[in-house]
Amino acid sequence: MDSIKMNIRQVLGSVSEEEILKQAGNAMACNKALYEKNRPGNDFLGWVTLPSSVSEKEICEIEDTAANLRSRCDVVVVIGIGGSYLGAKAVIDALSSSFDWLQEKRENPVVVYAGNNIGEDYLYELSGYLNKKNFGIINISKSGTTTEPALAFRILKEQLEKAVGKEEARNRIVAITDASKGALRTLAVQEGYKTFVIPDDVGGRYSVLTPVGLLPIAVAGINIRRLLQGAIDMENATGVNSSFEYNLPAIYAAIRNELYKRGKKIEILVNYHPKLHYFAEWWKQLYGESEGKDLKGIFPAAVDFTTDLHSMGQWIQEGERSIFETVISIQTPREKVVVPHDDANLDGLNFLEGKRVDEVNKMAELGTRIAHVDGGVPNILIEIPELNEYYIGELIYFFEKACGISGYILGVNPFNQPGVEAYKKNMFALLEKPGYEKETEAIKKRL
Amino acid sequence: MDSIKMNIRQVLGSVSEEEILKQAGNAMACNKALYEKNRPGNDFLGWVTLPSSVSEKEICEIEDTAANLRSRCDVVVVIGIGGSYLGAKAVIDALSSSFDWLQEKRENPVVVYAGNNIGEDYLYELSGYLNKKNFGIINISKSGTTTEPALAFRILKEQLEKAVGKEEARNRIVAITDASKGALRTLAVQEGYKTFVIPDDVGGRYSVLTPVGLLPIAVAGINIRRLLQGAIDMENATGVNSSFEYNLPAIYAAIRNELYKRGKKIEILVNYHPKLHYFAEWWKQLYGESEGKDLKGIFPAAVDFTTDLHSMGQWIQEGERSIFETVISIQTPREKVVVPHDDANLDGLNFLEGKRVDEVNKMAELGTRIAHVDGGVPNILIEIPELNEYYIGELIYFFEKACGISGYILGVNPFNQPGVEAYKKNMFALLEKPGYEKETEAIKKRL
Repeated sequence: MDSIKMNIRQVLGSVSEEEILKQAGNAMACNKALYEKNRPGNDFLGWVTLPSSVSEKEICEIEDTAANLRSRCDVVVVIGIGGSYLGAKAVIDALSSSFDWLQEKRENPVVVYAGNNIGEDYLYELSGYLNKKNFGIINISKSGTTTEPALAFRILKEQLEKAVGKEEARNRIVAITDASKGALRTLAVQEGYKTFVIPDDVGGRYSVLTPVGLLPIAVAGINIRRLLQGAIDMENATGVNSSFEYNLPAIYAAIRNELYKRGKKIEILVNYHPKLHYFAEWWKQLYGESEGKDLKGIFPAAVDFTTDLHSMGQWIQEGERSIFETVISIQTPREKVVVPHDDANLDGLNFLEGKRVDEVNKMAELGTRIAHVDGGVPNILIEIPELNEYYIGELIYFFEKACGISGYILGVNPFNQPGVEAYKKNMFALLEKPGYEKETEAIKKRL
Repeated sequence: MDSIKMNIRQVLGSVSEEEILKQAGNAMACNKALYEKNRPGNDFLGWVTLPSSVSEKEICEIEDTAANLRSRCDVVVVIGIGGSYLGAKAVIDALSSSFDWLQEKRENPVVVYAGNNIGEDYLYELSGYLNKKNFGIINISKSGTTTEPALAFRILKEQLEKAVGKEEARNRIVAITDASKGALRTLAVQEGYKTFVIPDDVGGRYSVLTPVGLLPIAVAGINIRRLLQGAIDMENATGVNSSFEYNLPAIYAAIRNELYKRGKKIEILVNYHPKLHYFAEWWKQLYGESEGKDLKGIFPAAVDFTTDLHSMGQWIQEGERSIFETVISIQTPREKVVVPHDDANLDGLNFLEGKRVDEVNKMAELGTRIAHVDGGVPNILIEIPELNEYYIGELIYFFEKACGISGYILGVNPFNQPGVEAYKKNMFALLEKPGYEKETEAIKKRL
């Protein structure tokens, strides 16, 4: 099996090889700390050895549950917010046809998402769509009381029970939650829902390889064994005894911190395949939530090229020189389309006749990388042999591991997210939630 | 008719009212320059008086053409890149049901997009989907030779002609292009396609209220007269003789430049309704491409809340204090969903029982704005009474006008995009396009 590769030639104008190698010791110490659990956030390091520790029994259980949902449902609603939906959506979008879900006849159920916003129109329209469908629910929440998913679940559970009866609804609802405590666990026990556990030591943004991600991914017809195998191989390649020169996540983490020190405040994750759009959204949570604290951290942004070369391209080429790019390049497309001949050749494209469309895409990619470096935007290239389960698994673990190392290099706790509570506290105060009386009084005075 | 409003209370901690008022003269001079056409980019100011100058005849022609496509097609493919698809997609997504296109029985054709990337898999999958559909094409390109759309059109035109014959294909292809010159105009004349004109003095990112945006929007079943009316009313309210205090675009432009001077390098456009996601993408092109040049310009980013409070929220709350937010708030949802009662109340949501879901959303919005200001992130609030054609029309012109003024305040030409050529030149050289022999030789030496 081949492996993902990294090409750093186009950062060397900004950070020399020597300067990168100087960071080796520190980067590898940070990698080691992820195993020795002796730095901040050490209660949330379950993801480090997660891929290799998923048991055959758990995989079978996920596959069986997915098969059950697939047999009963035309639509599966994944209820969850943040890490509870982004990983699944990233992988499902990356590995499905861009137009598959518009097909009337489908092999796989349509996977839709809820509980990741509080849009009244969204819930109304989703509910209307589900009215005419055989649907099921995967409800993902550690506590069962996070406002967005709890609200969506309350509404959609009622709808499902009305539509198919309480008993059949029990067959179509799966809860992924805490092992023993919390509202969703209590309800699942009462109702006899099939359940899976969110491990205590894996935070939301690192949870895609737990049932949180694996069950929805399996429901979508994607091979989770190969996904895990890719992650396992990357886990093994980046272990505590690996060397910096072969530890891609450590190199990536070292380089991005060196660039940050040199004023590169924004990292843009670039893809040339629209299917990777949500992979970038997953990446933005992973890095933004891990590093954006203590008044520091690279700002993570993303673009889909060549699409966004016609929107953000101008800024990237000639705006403030405060950015660098990380480019995900897919070496081989899955399908084949060749540029056809045209007698009239009015569009002037006959010089591309007989070439694969991807060859044009690759030259756009290479041409853009060169243009951006020339314009003062260095880039790190990550090469993926093919868009399949295995390499996406590798890529997931690559970015997770790099994020842990990078956060430690930056000197933050990459595994907490204290800032996420601020809006919730205000929201509860404004909604006069019982227990928030003091906060309610205080915030009302400010309005 | 009500109107969109702006609330700047939550920037006043960063820029005082007095400091904003000091910018009035300059901002209004920039507004005036857009009418007097005496600053850089004056060849591209057709958008300034565009809304009020669209004729009844042109509207009828667009409506008739849309009706023809709607009657013949289940799917309409909009081929275009950058401003040639973003405006249409922004408006169509904002004003359609989030789940409408998953319905088997539909009032409106499905609108899909092509020619906005060079994905081989994307084209293969789109082509496969269209195989079983009655489809039509709106091909949007000033020149007809821009690589991405030209490639997609070459492939899909061939497919359509094979499927329905050359004659019926002519009834289903509409070309929006230059009035007299270029490859697409020539082809359209030869084939007898219905055509519309992209005015010479309106750049791509300002073209949504020309046929470029209006035809796809009308095809999607959206009332373009009301959209234009909203834009006209905003055009009238912000004219050359308006006063700064009532000229919302001028105020917005002045404030964002003051914030930029004070180190706020990133502007995040925030919405609380997932339907506005692509409106933000349209906005990113408008501002990024207009201002990102001469090594300066605010970096435009966007988030969907509350969704992204669980991904980018941490960074925004506690990362580098280099950001500000512009929040689009929709006052009244279109549909009604109330939080239902639950006897067990395990999720603890009964305190919200009987409240509309949007009330929770609004408190999340207010709570977040307060939390972010407390955390050092000022915000500008733009209030939209309702998500409908009229207010979206107002909002479009608001942002366009503000962008022109803002670019002039910044001291750039907001109407060119020289940086977009850089990647194209390299791509053509790498693809050995005839006429690029010198560039080919030069770039090959560098590889």
